[in-house]
Amino acid sequence: MAEEKERKILVAVDEGEESFYALSWCLTNIVNQNSKDTLVLLYARPPRPVYSTLDGSGYLFSSDILATIEKYSHEVAECVIEKAQRLCKDFNDIKVESKAEHGDPRDVICQAAERLNVDLVVMGSHGYGLIKRAFLGSVSNHCAQNLKCPVLIVKKPKSNGGN
Amino acid sequence: MAEEKERKILVAVDEGEESFYALSWCLTNIVNQNSKDTLVLLYARPPRPVYSTLDGSGYLFSSDILATIEKYSHEVAECVIEKAQRLCKDFNDIKVESKAEHGDPRDVICQAAERLNVDLVVMGSHGYGLIKRAFLGSVSNHCAQNLKCPVLIVKKPKSNGGN
Repeated sequence: MAEEKERKILVAVDEGEESFYALSWCLTNIVNQNSKDTLVLLYARPPRPVYSTLDGSGYLFSSDILATIEKYSHEVAECVIEKAQRLCKDFNDIKVESKAEHGDPRDVICQAAERLNVDLVVMGSHGYGLIKRAFLGSVSNHCAQNLKCPVLIVKKPKSNGGN
Repeated sequence: MAEEKERKILVAVDEGEESFYALSWCLTNIVNQNSKDTLVLLYARPPRPVYSTLDGSGYLFSSDILATIEKYSHEVAECVIEKAQRLCKDFNDIKVESKAEHGDPRDVICQAAERLNVDLVVMGSHGYGLIKRAFLGSVSNHCAQNLKCPVLIVKKPKSNGGN
């Protein structure tokens, strides 16, 4: 039993609190303080909806507005990843890598896990908001069914009972 | 950060190899050798199908046959749990409890996790056989959606690449 195996753990992060809860659960319960684990923080930037170039009345958005939307989405990605990196700071020995990739979160997560040959994927059970989920289906469900590696799905507890 | 928290981890075991792979993944990757974790091995004895008192031609099974089926199912449960306990033997410091409970595995697992207030549920992604799964739906899907605690779903890798 190779106890000291260096594992690669992919944690899917998004704007929601649940994915941060999942990350800290993983840090506390899976990543050993003295391990040489590599944590890959992955933010999937959901694809722009197809109607994004049209406003409600059918007019094209100006390229200015599209650029603003794009810039905002980029800043959100950076902000989420920075927040996740700060959470990892207490764990000095682990290596932390970060990635933000465009696409349907279901594909982004599954493809990255496969490509990076990770040992475990950690994610919140909801994520990507109620509305997006209605279109995309449950991301965690899809990943649990399609990933070849183990998947840890973490739910943020309802506020009774703290941490 | 209470590193030394004694965790209670429920591992759902069944006849399939995948649940044993899940158990050993959990032992190697989550249970620390020096931790005081408690592992609860849970075997769900699937409910007898409703047609079990009738044979194919509509005759009642004799009570002898039913008793034999019952005995067989009981022995399978014991055998699965013994095999799982043996796997835990290398981990001297953890406490191991075992339970075999009757019922739909989805309910058995969710109810036990709630009742025992476990910190994590570990299970194989398939389990309970192709045919049973067609009737019962995916056990792991159901548990991932309904459990309040984190759920780790482990797939047995296809034989390329080993452990």
